[in-house]
Amino acid sequence: MKLGELASLAGVRLEGDPRTEIRFVSTLRAAGPGSIAFLSNYKYRPYLADTGASAVILPEELLDECPVAALVSDDPYVTYARVANALYPAETVEAGAVHPTAVVAEDADIHHSVSIGPHCVVESGVRLACGVVLGPACIVQRDCSLGEDTRLVARVTLCHRTQLGVRCLIHPGAVLGSDGFGLANDRGIWLKIPQVGRVVLGDDVEVGANTTIDRGAIEDTVIEDGVKLDNQIQLGHNVRVGAHSLIAGCAGISGSVTIGRQCTIGGGAGFGGHLELTDNVVITGFSRVSKSIREPGVYTSGTPLQKQRDWQKNTVRYRQLEKMAQRLSELEKKLKD
Amino acid sequence: MKLGELASLAGVRLEGDPRTEIRFVSTLRAAGPGSIAFLSNYKYRPYLADTGASAVILPEELLDECPVAALVSDDPYVTYARVANALYPAETVEAGAVHPTAVVAEDADIHHSVSIGPHCVVESGVRLACGVVLGPACIVQRDCSLGEDTRLVARVTLCHRTQLGVRCLIHPGAVLGSDGFGLANDRGIWLKIPQVGRVVLGDDVEVGANTTIDRGAIEDTVIEDGVKLDNQIQLGHNVRVGAHSLIAGCAGISGSVTIGRQCTIGGGAGFGGHLELTDNVVITGFSRVSKSIREPGVYTSGTPLQKQRDWQKNTVRYRQLEKMAQRLSELEKKLKD
Amino acid sequence: MKLGELASLAGVRLEGDPRTEIRFVSTLRAAGPGSIAFLSNYKYRPYLADTGASAVILPEELLDECPVAALVSDDPYVTYARVANALYPAETVEAGAVHPTAVVAEDADIHHSVSIGPHCVVESGVRLACGVVLGPACIVQRDCSLGEDTRLVARVTLCHRTQLGVRCLIHPGAVLGSDGFGLANDRGIWLKIPQVGRVVLGDDVEVGANTTIDRGAIEDTVIEDGVKLDNQIQLGHNVRVGAHSLIAGCAGISGSVTIGRQCTIGGGAGFGGHLELTDNVVITGFSRVSKSIREPGVYTSGTPLQKQRDWQKNTVRYRQLEKMAQRLSELEKKLKD
Repeated sequence: MKLGELASLAGVRLEGDPRTEIRFVSTLRAAGPGSIAFLSNYKYRPYLADTGASAVILPEELLDECPVAALVSDDPYVTYARVANALYPAETVEAGAVHPTAVVAEDADIHHSVSIGPHCVVESGVRLACGVVLGPACIVQRDCSLGEDTRLVARVTLCHRTQLGVRCLIHPGAVLGSDGFGLANDRGIWLKIPQVGRVVLGDDVEVGANTTIDRGAIEDTVIEDGVKLDNQIQLGHNVRVGAHSLIAGCAGISGSVTIGRQCTIGGGAGFGGHLELTDNVVITGFSRVSKSIREPGVYTSGTPLQKQRDWQKNTVRYRQLEKMAQRLSELEKKLKD
Repeated sequence: MKLGELASLAGVRLEGDPRTEIRFVSTLRAAGPGSIAFLSNYKYRPYLADTGASAVILPEELLDECPVAALVSDDPYVTYARVANALYPAETVEAGAVHPTAVVAEDADIHHSVSIGPHCVVESGVRLACGVVLGPACIVQRDCSLGEDTRLVARVTLCHRTQLGVRCLIHPGAVLGSDGFGLANDRGIWLKIPQVGRVVLGDDVEVGANTTIDRGAIEDTVIEDGVKLDNQIQLGHNVRVGAHSLIAGCAGISGSVTIGRQCTIGGGAGFGGHLELTDNVVITGFSRVSKSIREPGVYTSGTPLQKQRDWQKNTVRYRQLEKMAQRLSELEKKLKD
Repeated sequence: MKLGELASLAGVRLEGDPRTEIRFVSTLRAAGPGSIAFLSNYKYRPYLADTGASAVILPEELLDECPVAALVSDDPYVTYARVANALYPAETVEAGAVHPTAVVAEDADIHHSVSIGPHCVVESGVRLACGVVLGPACIVQRDCSLGEDTRLVARVTLCHRTQLGVRCLIHPGAVLGSDGFGLANDRGIWLKIPQVGRVVLGDDVEVGANTTIDRGAIEDTVIEDGVKLDNQIQLGHNVRVGAHSLIAGCAGISGSVTIGRQCTIGGGAGFGGHLELTDNVVITGFSRVSKSIREPGVYTSGTPLQKQRDWQKNTVRYRQLEKMAQRLSELEKKLKD
């Protein structure tokens, strides 16, 4: 593409020759001719002067240091997103192609534009809207519904009655609609509780590889519009994630947790059950959430990494914290006397 | 079903008209005509008076507040389990149906009642007992054995020689019998140790979506009767889980750990290798277990979630705990003098 | 095999009859005739005198206590690895067999010795070298390349352009090359960043069941030679793992982390993004790494498991650490006065 086109579709100012040919993205450091790089994190500023890129996306204040053409942006990373999406459109698939090895129920309601890959299984009562793409080996069980342009990359499992909005993107190995972990203890024996709710995704939801989302116990598990889930996340039954929230990899969200809108949950964070987070909460990576959070802000738990020798000493003291506090109080009392 | 039938099969007292028609379950709050709800957690008591349910399962002492028919139970959640299982029997599948796309070894020993879904692979030497159901795209590798009425929901992988008892239920993406992580370090190079044990599940075991259970290194990995495993759990080689224990999602159990009977392991809990837990131990969610536990009880680790600003201050002090303890001792000594 | 053969291929000294027949491995305790056991961990020394094994691998200094034939080794576990690999060679598959249910692109470059199992999908532009084995239901998307003797056990997903070296072993449910979690926030809406790098594995890399490795955002995610990854691990985009490092199950490695050579990362360990670990670092299980590590050694974080009652008291004090430190300073000051 021409740099001028990219500037115009990203809605930013161009400094340089609009006819510059851009074919791929690169980092500032490894860039070669035909590439466009971006500078968002100032840590990479030292690489700007010597970059081999044909163009760089950067903030106004770094323009003077840029040796090549530039797209000037208040938010270079957002501009980079737009430019990269233009340079790398989603892989096109043949509209309407249903692979002969796919097993598709006769009563499934499938738009003529839908593409279904090899070894897929589409069960009875399923609805696939215009532009839906099922990559190889996807399983869509009975009565699921997928909105327009939703794409299952490969090997996705949707259990019965799962609902996906439009433009959702689900990565390999994800399982949506598996049974929630509902059990009643009858004098030492666990009785399974039928899980009769659904998983319901809004529009523009992305679900990472090998992430699992359980169906609701009675009511539904709900993921609102624009939510982005990374890999290997577990969402228990009846979780609700508010619109435009983001959850990083390996987070574990116990049943009936409600997360507000535009929250950011760091990787590996763990949630106790039945908690509520208000909007705009940030949980840092690998923190443990054991209480509801009613005030926006950044929250953390955990202890710092130490050399094991130091850790061992401090950890002994940790066990004695209650006693240390009592000794401190006694000293204060004595001194007062 | 009639409410009278439900009362009788659950073995509880009915207050109200036994001919009341019950078609589905619901929460107290969202209930409509034809539904049955339950009240087990007193947090939901305020919704009882105005419930739209046709019947409610509740303890004797709340009977007076119930505006509709009631099933009176000492343990409403267990009664609910029985009622819900009656209202929502497991999906029936056509007995004996083997999908033409399934690839089944000629020498597999398959009961005539077994149902095998599309794109399944059943290898040589496999034994599938009466009533076994393989959902779509399950892989059962050579010499596996599945007991009566065991069901693989969809896309389950059983590696060679895995043994499942009767009435097991395995959810999508689960992998049983993968190689354990056994490696010997030969002057900087890791040598793989062949993993020649099996995975052996007892009866009535449930395994969640994308959970992995490694085969034993020499002897077997064993999951005893009635154990319930949630999603995304990892059980290393030679783990043994005692009967009727329960492990919540994302827990990581290192190799050769032995967990007793009727233990409850919270979500995301992590175990060091070669530990032993006695019976009736509870580990709270996201705790880290680094020593064997010989006494029943509830165990926890971890630090509380805090606003990041507070956390930063406390975490600095945590690193100084050993020094703080020394300073405290010195003060005590001085004051004594 | 004869014990003499095993001694000679493992390069160790034999004490006893070289014609002793060895058919399988066992533990010292459960051993029977025809088996070989090993003693590496002195915890198992009490079982040596009464072992039923036909031979034992052990260090010189325990030779006197051994009631049967012995292989004498400086490193019994390494010797056991060699012996067990001789007794249990990898399952042989029919070279050149492509199952009729496999869907293989016409333009894929497939060596005549390659074995492809049922329900596999091999897309356009893929290269499979001599001796590659694809177990059942593997998906190899366009333009992937697999080196000689690399084996996908079953149900592995390789997304487009993933590169594997020679003798790699990938376990069921693993997903390599899924999109990294790259998103730019445009006034509350998350924009997806195309992930255009690849996943590149060196030689002799092992990847555990249900582990996920994301493709790079711009440059590649790289796993060097001899790295061993356990189950359920998540490696974010642009992670680099140095040669002969080992990562245990459930670890979560955030994007752009660089791990040095011959590091050992314990199970469930969590890494913040963009960190660097030098060579020969050990992170203990379930630790959280939030800073780069420039010095080899053993590192830990976390607090010890306690009875919940004790934990509750100490955890209250933990929140007060900063205040306790201040009170301590005041006392010291007063006492000085």
